[in-house]
Amino acid sequence: MPQNARALAIDTEFADVDRRHHFEIPAGVIYLDGNSLGPLTTAAREWVQRATADEWGRGLIRSWNTADWVHIGQRAGDAIAPLIGAAPGTVMVGDSTTLNLYKALHAAIDLQPSERNEVITDVDNFPTDLYIVDRVCAQRGFTSRAMKRSEMLGALSDRTSVLTLTHVDYRSAEMADMLELTRAAHAVGALVIWDLAHSAGAVPVDLAACDADFAVGCGYKYLNGGPGAPAFVYIAPRWLGVARQPIEGWHGHAQPFAFAREYEPAPGREQFQVGTQPVLAASALLGALSVFEGVDVARLHAKSIAIAGLFHDLADELLAQRGFGIFSHRDGASRGSHVALTHSDGYAIVQALIARGIIGDFRRPDVLRFGIAPLYNSAKDIVALVEAIIDIADSGSYAQFRSENAVI
Amino acid sequence: MPQNARALAIDTEFADVDRRHHFEIPAGVIYLDGNSLGPLTTAAREWVQRATADEWGRGLIRSWNTADWVHIGQRAGDAIAPLIGAAPGTVMVGDSTTLNLYKALHAAIDLQPSERNEVITDVDNFPTDLYIVDRVCAQRGFTSRAMKRSEMLGALSDRTSVLTLTHVDYRSAEMADMLELTRAAHAVGALVIWDLAHSAGAVPVDLAACDADFAVGCGYKYLNGGPGAPAFVYIAPRWLGVARQPIEGWHGHAQPFAFAREYEPAPGREQFQVGTQPVLAASALLGALSVFEGVDVARLHAKSIAIAGLFHDLADELLAQRGFGIFSHRDGASRGSHVALTHSDGYAIVQALIARGIIGDFRRPDVLRFGIAPLYNSAKDIVALVEAIIDIADSGSYAQFRSENAVI
Repeated sequence: MPQNARALAIDTEFADVDRRHHFEIPAGVIYLDGNSLGPLTTAAREWVQRATADEWGRGLIRSWNTADWVHIGQRAGDAIAPLIGAAPGTVMVGDSTTLNLYKALHAAIDLQPSERNEVITDVDNFPTDLYIVDRVCAQRGFTSRAMKRSEMLGALSDRTSVLTLTHVDYRSAEMADMLELTRAAHAVGALVIWDLAHSAGAVPVDLAACDADFAVGCGYKYLNGGPGAPAFVYIAPRWLGVARQPIEGWHGHAQPFAFAREYEPAPGREQFQVGTQPVLAASALLGALSVFEGVDVARLHAKSIAIAGLFHDLADELLAQRGFGIFSHRDGASRGSHVALTHSDGYAIVQALIARGIIGDFRRPDVLRFGIAPLYNSAKDIVALVEAIIDIADSGSYAQFRSENAVI
Repeated sequence: MPQNARALAIDTEFADVDRRHHFEIPAGVIYLDGNSLGPLTTAAREWVQRATADEWGRGLIRSWNTADWVHIGQRAGDAIAPLIGAAPGTVMVGDSTTLNLYKALHAAIDLQPSERNEVITDVDNFPTDLYIVDRVCAQRGFTSRAMKRSEMLGALSDRTSVLTLTHVDYRSAEMADMLELTRAAHAVGALVIWDLAHSAGAVPVDLAACDADFAVGCGYKYLNGGPGAPAFVYIAPRWLGVARQPIEGWHGHAQPFAFAREYEPAPGREQFQVGTQPVLAASALLGALSVFEGVDVARLHAKSIAIAGLFHDLADELLAQRGFGIFSHRDGASRGSHVALTHSDGYAIVQALIARGIIGDFRRPDVLRFGIAPLYNSAKDIVALVEAIIDIADSGSYAQFRSENAVI
């Protein structure tokens, strides 16, 4: 089949960024859900084992010093920094993406004059971001303005305190123009917080070049840090020691182990820490990040664009006639790293695929998402996926999976 | 020596709660720092390994359902509940102790009339609790009143919104009277948040009988959940579905996976969740908690009282003359599970002990802390500790450890 030749050509062209051998994906599984939970790497498994048996088991409390647990959030942050165009010392790992957005949003608002009393966000944002914006605005007596991305340039004004949105849309994969929106926000005096949940490790991001103020992101998607891996927060160099997040715990203190009565904010990114770092989870993330060493993210994205291009073409050719829509953004250069289809029986079809070992996910109301993680996915995976979708659709065998009994 | 006979008698009397064989404490180590970081259990190691290799590695995203990751915070909470006198469904595991205090304090304040504009806390509280109280009060325009525990009964008034303190003092180990203080606070209409960081798993706590409103606590001390283990928060049954914490993320939503535009608070403890649970870390905690099955906490405390009594007696007899003070609370019934000495060279002496494999910790300015975790510590450990302290003190060999180069 011609698609097989095209797939082979893509996989050959991008063999230099293929890190499939670092991943412990079970035999018989085609994993296309790295946008939701990245798979286990040998490195992550070994780092967890070492952190558990050696550092905790044998080192005990001493490992805070001897295994440098005390800087584990900074170490993981510095490993993420080159993937998102951040300078060393500006990324802190810890807590969850949602928590980091809460912290960054309060911190950003506190940097602004109080006359600026609105926050602008993307109405299509991942819901947790919307909830945080809404609640923080309520706490501040602000107006929360959720709108389409296309309306933002016209809506930014001298009333805007903060603009916050997710770089890659979690359903359509459309990528916002980070440079343009950040500049436009700054032009009216607003600050910007980017959510890189679906960007970090998958598409090129240059926070420094875009002059972004803050960013947050997820450790367990394309960074492969494990289920519930700690998240990250980026603080622009100009805001280090200036911005102050509101959940002031001992690990954000300038001298956490002095046990001083009064809080003194740490002068660097550490102020964005709250409590004790989850060492085992952060170790998994550190292991997973080691797989990115020597990998050019732009090259990863180029591979993703090529694979997704094949997928879109096959969908046009073979799936449209079978009742599937194409929901993902078409232009590869401004698309993240997943492809989304729609189908009125999307949930059941995703379940039928999972039953065959082809794992994607479903987002209501009718979106089938397939992550293309170029470190381990191949164009061949997509050919196999499309063949399976055709088989399932034509046989109607997915009907048995219609009952919604899975929690997620 | 008579102390050896007394130690043997204690260890024999409490053999029923000895779970030493569940712990993987290295040969040659006497571990007396379980009040800071509980040691590795075989169960925790195995649970982490299973969560990593099997659930994440082989189950991948499916494990949210098949391994019930989606309820891992509730499962861990229900395992902690019997240790603190809480009903099933009232304890949520997740985030850090500091974060949970921030959440609970805001939630408690929101339950109160706005005329109540002060929070009372313990001036000797662990610093992170003081920082949170100070900052939350600043956010609310409240007065933060830190005072000695002995002054609290007289200070509670109709201006008090919330009383929050740590049950067991992290230096002296003195235990506050939970029933008396909770009743006194309620009598003036205040709410109470208890920090059980140094209580859970070590001393009997009966939150339900005390009618406490909220509690928070630590997973990595006497619960042995591992470095940076997730913490817990207790919400009294009457506040479930009523109290609302302010960091409103998707996992606190009534239907997290419906991805609804508007936040709808979960009706139960789940509202106190924020983002995705740290599955690997929570698995370690679940494994560690399995060791408590069938163990009566009152019996653990009785063992701790007996061992600490021996320690205090030996300190009076042998250490006082060598320049050591006894800082820990004397009355066993109202003491937590660690013993604290003071010495002007305390830091160096703790380091000299660690060099011999006897691990305690140091808290400024001059406190040597030794945790007695009755699941795995024995009276024999304390005899060996006292003998080592005498040897180190008499030889003066600790002087070489005076330079403070350890971070913690």
